[in-house]
Amino acid sequence: MKITILGTGGGARAHSAKLLELGHKVIVGTRDVQTTLARTEPDVMGTPPYRDFLAEHPRVTLMTFGEAAAAADEVVINGIDGHNAVAALSAIADQLQGKVLIDYGVPYLYAHQPVHPWPTPWGIMPKLEPCDTDSLAEQIQRALPRTRVVKSFVTQEQTTVVDPASIAGGDHTMFVAGDDLDAKDQATSLLQAYGWSDILDLGPLVSARGMEMYAHIHSAIGFALGYQFGGHFGLKVVR
Amino acid sequence: MKITILGTGGGARAHSAKLLELGHKVIVGTRDVQTTLARTEPDVMGTPPYRDFLAEHPRVTLMTFGEAAAAADEVVINGIDGHNAVAALSAIADQLQGKVLIDYGVPYLYAHQPVHPWPTPWGIMPKLEPCDTDSLAEQIQRALPRTRVVKSFVTQEQTTVVDPASIAGGDHTMFVAGDDLDAKDQATSLLQAYGWSDILDLGPLVSARGMEMYAHIHSAIGFALGYQFGGHFGLKVVR
Repeated sequence: MKITILGTGGGARAHSAKLLELGHKVIVGTRDVQTTLARTEPDVMGTPPYRDFLAEHPRVTLMTFGEAAAAADEVVINGIDGHNAVAALSAIADQLQGKVLIDYGVPYLYAHQPVHPWPTPWGIMPKLEPCDTDSLAEQIQRALPRTRVVKSFVTQEQTTVVDPASIAGGDHTMFVAGDDLDAKDQATSLLQAYGWSDILDLGPLVSARGMEMYAHIHSAIGFALGYQFGGHFGLKVVR
Repeated sequence: MKITILGTGGGARAHSAKLLELGHKVIVGTRDVQTTLARTEPDVMGTPPYRDFLAEHPRVTLMTFGEAAAAADEVVINGIDGHNAVAALSAIADQLQGKVLIDYGVPYLYAHQPVHPWPTPWGIMPKLEPCDTDSLAEQIQRALPRTRVVKSFVTQEQTTVVDPASIAGGDHTMFVAGDDLDAKDQATSLLQAYGWSDILDLGPLVSARGMEMYAHIHSAIGFALGYQFGGHFGLKVVR
């Protein structure tokens, strides 16, 4: 299948590499192709420049967001950061029409604050916007009524999402939520191809609120286990 | 030990019964003893009148909130509902001075709305207040600076908190957070007496934010597994 990933960050790269490995044709969307290719230094997270990744994964096709969305057979993975996702996706609503959009964004504000306003004993405390009575996924779905939005992947680091077996042999839980059953089936199939066996359907897209709000305790668990950025642990719903 | 539980709801009863079973002297606090004893009908959640519980557990000593707090050797469990907790606890700040207060409240608003403002396909969607940049536990700690607040129990139904072995032989995870290490040790000892073996310290009380915000996905998981009110499942952090 031709699968599109929007975004060039670490999470988007994890999906790109895994989907190539699974034999898919991988199209990656970025805001401005020349700008993305012109970078030669690691970003603030220490992620190497994208052209290094492209050099290692020459089968990836890099296009603009709109071109990449239009080129997908059906499934598009949204790896645009949560703060910018609604605006960036709204601008390509026509190209996303009829597609399944799997969103794993967390609508953090902290990366966009000049000063982190919530210092904590273990560093910074993110703020979510929206939160509690709305979610990023619902905002995207309202902005793109002709696209079928599925929330998933969001309760894990993307390196673990594409390689669940790296933790406890893969015996942990992944969640999906969305208002379109067929779209959720496609997300579930993708997760199965990644190696997930315990995939729990949390129902309609409104459950994205809880999935995004889980980010707080996920960070706290990661810190408790000694990871500064992103934990290497799974979450198992034990029945 | 003389251990006090503030509140007479289902969660408070679960702790009361278990602590009696473990050989502790159990003191229960309520706003107005006569009003509590006068009720003869189940409440809106279907919980039987408290006098039925007292008849079955005659060793429980029922007192006012303030008397009960003062009577504890050291540990007080807060089972007052999240919406009323700060006001009720502030009124007995002197009696709680120097005590360890274990709080499991979720600051839900929905029970106090005449109309549920967030209908969802699976019922109602709670709203939390505070949320994201503050927590109930931090509010309580600020209101009671001479009391050592620990957040725990909150990621589970209280019937499971007092009986972890009822799920998967007890192999799932409980969290504690708080700014006083000795107070956290006491909460941890209590959890061990309840049967918990996987107790993860999430650090300072600021982590209560994530623990309270987890309520959304906990509800969604419960619904997904087929429970209407409260799920019978555990959450295991898989390393």
